[in-house]
Amino acid sequence: MDRVSFKEIAKQYKAIFVDSYGVLKNHNGLIEGVQPVIDQLRDEKKTIRVLTNDASRSQEQQVEMFTSLGLSGLKDEEIITSGMLARHFLELKVKTGKIAYLGTPNSAGYFLQYGLEPIPVADIDLDNVDEIEAFVFLDDEGFNWEEGINKTVNFLRRKNLPIIVANSDKYYPISKNDVAVAIGGISRLIESVLSQKFIRFGKPDSQMFMYAFDDINKTGLFTKSDILMVGDTLHTDILGGNKFGLKTLLVLSGNTRPESVEMKINSSGIIPDFISDSILT
Amino acid sequence: MDRVSFKEIAKQYKAIFVDSYGVLKNHNGLIEGVQPVIDQLRDEKKTIRVLTNDASRSQEQQVEMFTSLGLSGLKDEEIITSGMLARHFLELKVKTGKIAYLGTPNSAGYFLQYGLEPIPVADIDLDNVDEIEAFVFLDDEGFNWEEGINKTVNFLRRKNLPIIVANSDKYYPISKNDVAVAIGGISRLIESVLSQKFIRFGKPDSQMFMYAFDDINKTGLFTKSDILMVGDTLHTDILGGNKFGLKTLLVLSGNTRPESVEMKINSSGIIPDFISDSILT
Amino acid sequence: MDRVSFKEIAKQYKAIFVDSYGVLKNHNGLIEGVQPVIDQLRDEKKTIRVLTNDASRSQEQQVEMFTSLGLSGLKDEEIITSGMLARHFLELKVKTGKIAYLGTPNSAGYFLQYGLEPIPVADIDLDNVDEIEAFVFLDDEGFNWEEGINKTVNFLRRKNLPIIVANSDKYYPISKNDVAVAIGGISRLIESVLSQKFIRFGKPDSQMFMYAFDDINKTGLFTKSDILMVGDTLHTDILGGNKFGLKTLLVLSGNTRPESVEMKINSSGIIPDFISDSILT
Amino acid sequence: MDRVSFKEIAKQYKAIFVDSYGVLKNHNGLIEGVQPVIDQLRDEKKTIRVLTNDASRSQEQQVEMFTSLGLSGLKDEEIITSGMLARHFLELKVKTGKIAYLGTPNSAGYFLQYGLEPIPVADIDLDNVDEIEAFVFLDDEGFNWEEGINKTVNFLRRKNLPIIVANSDKYYPISKNDVAVAIGGISRLIESVLSQKFIRFGKPDSQMFMYAFDDINKTGLFTKSDILMVGDTLHTDILGGNKFGLKTLLVLSGNTRPESVEMKINSSGIIPDFISDSILT
Repeated sequence: MDRVSFKEIAKQYKAIFVDSYGVLKNHNGLIEGVQPVIDQLRDEKKTIRVLTNDASRSQEQQVEMFTSLGLSGLKDEEIITSGMLARHFLELKVKTGKIAYLGTPNSAGYFLQYGLEPIPVADIDLDNVDEIEAFVFLDDEGFNWEEGINKTVNFLRRKNLPIIVANSDKYYPISKNDVAVAIGGISRLIESVLSQKFIRFGKPDSQMFMYAFDDINKTGLFTKSDILMVGDTLHTDILGGNKFGLKTLLVLSGNTRPESVEMKINSSGIIPDFISDSILT
Repeated sequence: MDRVSFKEIAKQYKAIFVDSYGVLKNHNGLIEGVQPVIDQLRDEKKTIRVLTNDASRSQEQQVEMFTSLGLSGLKDEEIITSGMLARHFLELKVKTGKIAYLGTPNSAGYFLQYGLEPIPVADIDLDNVDEIEAFVFLDDEGFNWEEGINKTVNFLRRKNLPIIVANSDKYYPISKNDVAVAIGGISRLIESVLSQKFIRFGKPDSQMFMYAFDDINKTGLFTKSDILMVGDTLHTDILGGNKFGLKTLLVLSGNTRPESVEMKINSSGIIPDFISDSILT
Repeated sequence: MDRVSFKEIAKQYKAIFVDSYGVLKNHNGLIEGVQPVIDQLRDEKKTIRVLTNDASRSQEQQVEMFTSLGLSGLKDEEIITSGMLARHFLELKVKTGKIAYLGTPNSAGYFLQYGLEPIPVADIDLDNVDEIEAFVFLDDEGFNWEEGINKTVNFLRRKNLPIIVANSDKYYPISKNDVAVAIGGISRLIESVLSQKFIRFGKPDSQMFMYAFDDINKTGLFTKSDILMVGDTLHTDILGGNKFGLKTLLVLSGNTRPESVEMKINSSGIIPDFISDSILT
Repeated sequence: MDRVSFKEIAKQYKAIFVDSYGVLKNHNGLIEGVQPVIDQLRDEKKTIRVLTNDASRSQEQQVEMFTSLGLSGLKDEEIITSGMLARHFLELKVKTGKIAYLGTPNSAGYFLQYGLEPIPVADIDLDNVDEIEAFVFLDDEGFNWEEGINKTVNFLRRKNLPIIVANSDKYYPISKNDVAVAIGGISRLIESVLSQKFIRFGKPDSQMFMYAFDDINKTGLFTKSDILMVGDTLHTDILGGNKFGLKTLLVLSGNTRPESVEMKINSSGIIPDFISDSILT
């Protein structure tokens, strides 16, 4: 598949959806040269949304993170996280009571700002679980893994309730060579032990794209053919964009490397509409 | 979990989404007493949509089928099928060329009414596959299984292209005791042989609910909390409705039997908001 | 990983286990030059066994097949098939009654030569299944797929009984480019529909290697370190040989191609002890 | 399925294989009344083997554990653990070098008593992995889970080598209501992150039964039809025993409860030859 220029392709669309890691930033920080590309998209009046499988930070905290890395000008409402979708689900399905979670107090704080009471797994009394109405996998930090995982298993064996995975990624990169297991990976361990499937949020699920699509249609008039989805990962960004009916552009500046892109497309059957080396092209 | 009256619960919602098999009809035909229930919902000005994982018939053909079973008054636009979603996807992603398929000529005829040229697997020339732009699993009828399945495997080994499953169900009931393997089941065999995952349409995927939600909002103003999803199957109707953020009501007049409902809910972790014996209650 | 000479490596072992397809023959017939290699192994007094996932032919029929392809000198007792293991299992677990099967009458004939009565799925009376004591997936030929698969599903929904897959391969090559779905693939479709797992025989399962190991120890004294397993497929020959504790040699004359061998080893984590282009080296 | 008397059935066999947890002991300790049953089997000259998926203790330590619980007379050589099989595999495939592991120093100590040098994951230098020749999942204790799991993932991303799971159980009971995630469960998390499958040891795999079978044939002459396998778990004890060709007896004194045994047999398709309330009957 030929490489194309991202900037040329982008001209044909009214809205650009971009993944965060691998497109805007990598393990070193901001990808050099991204700022002028984003600025140019704004000059061309493109509508932009960043779609990220990250449930540990609020929109405000995401913007602060980008600012600290050196990318200015992103607005809170341009960030769409899998955590927002999970919270939206909870607001609709659970009106009162406590929500147990694995994650940091910060992730629970922003996640449950609308009245539900968060309770970390460590604080659950297994002999008194009546008031807990849902369970959320939020973040891989904020708890002792051995204690937290085992207590979660035993809590979920005791009570049937909605179980939500706010970030479905299995792992995330932390350096050029290394990754860390994400809360989505931990949730799979517990699914395997319980022989259950939990409710997952985040790409490639259609809900994330639907949310972004509905969101941009609040201030404009967009059809699916007006939107280009840009990402570095076949199984999340490209599969999800394809399935939702968007045109998709794979960049090779993140998880998918130039030397293996063809093999990965062939073996997965997930085919982007376009491939660019990065959004700098 | 206590049984509730469907009619009482339904009063609290502006729109009712219902599954077809197990709610309106079963292997004997129309469930006796369904007509007055639907009539009453209309008298109460409820908006109705039938959401069905069936890709073998158009909306018009679905209405004809219900009429022939004895249920009158359904309108074409009240039927939403997984086949419509698959077609919608194809229209967005594939503009020209041939679409290869497994299924009946009728299913291909309605499926591709917008200009794309259907080609049954039996007619593919494996030495000349350039013009084929997508593959669709449409229906379990209309082809010799041994020839069709083997030829599909070898075609898909030759060419990378979007592969769509228009009905993700593994099987469907054909009598009190017996089932037939559906095209969704056949697609899984081929996924297993190729070690790939295809793009599936139909419940429990969010897209079907999103389509219905967008559709009713063309003529009214509905939020998710205005809608009740009614179905007989935990893994499709209830999981999908829950995940999309709708209230869900499980009926025991189809796949889920009264004697095993509690065990199935416990072992799956999929929890409906309400349970009724049927919509006649 | 460096390429080594099969003949040099083989000198270090008292017994050589070889896969059939990809080592001795391919889609064109016998691999040219195999006869003198086998002859040389015999001159060097090596004990030879052919381990094949094929349940459609008896040992005698396998030898006839090799003879017709041009490889002479193989003895019946040197062939070990997954079908033999499945039959051995049935003999131990089912003493009387009928055995239902999907496959050819020939496969059933050799399979059940010891007193059990075979009944093809087409002849089952679904209203009278009392006398049937086991079910065997034998061969992909000998039945109409649509009728046979659907009837098998409904039979297995009616009766709990041992279900055996006599060849666990998903597919087999029929030409340079094309494959055919094997009975092991068909069994997976039915497992998926029934949400059950059947009992599989054949590589990579340890039983096949154990059978061969016990067999050669009837006429000699062999430890596992005396044996070299040679095959063309990582997931069956090499995984199974590794797990049983044999040294393993991967040949590149069949399913695993020179250009992708490194990628396949890396992505599967299945590591042969040696790699040769073929047994001719 | 009717309940039978274990003692009556046992009379018909020369050898009795028993699982440990759920047959001899439970979360409270030794099951009351087990000692005279074992004594009677010895009086009847039955050959006994205990087959356990436990890789944390040597045979000697297993016997000490039973003695401390109050069951006397078991001999070291009557205990067969999944850890022994894993060690046996390593001895055959890895002759020199370091073996990295997750587990306690005790588990590594007995596991690698034959010359290989164990190195806990915590002590691995990720920049110098040349000398490490295999990886073993040994025990869920002895390491910090967050650090150990993440470091294992990154180590296994760096180096291809044999990866062994010495206990394939996902979890084990620790009290009437509660379980703890076992090293087999942790290994599945890492398999999911790496998209690989590791080599597992323990029931239901045939190797454990083969090892026990070969072992008793060193001091006697047994065919498979001389042996009864007794266990409390369908997916390990009964499936494994069935597949190896032994007669199987399910006891209801452990994981499988009287009220759900029929449902579990139906839904799994794993059918024991006999069912007893316990071995006390």
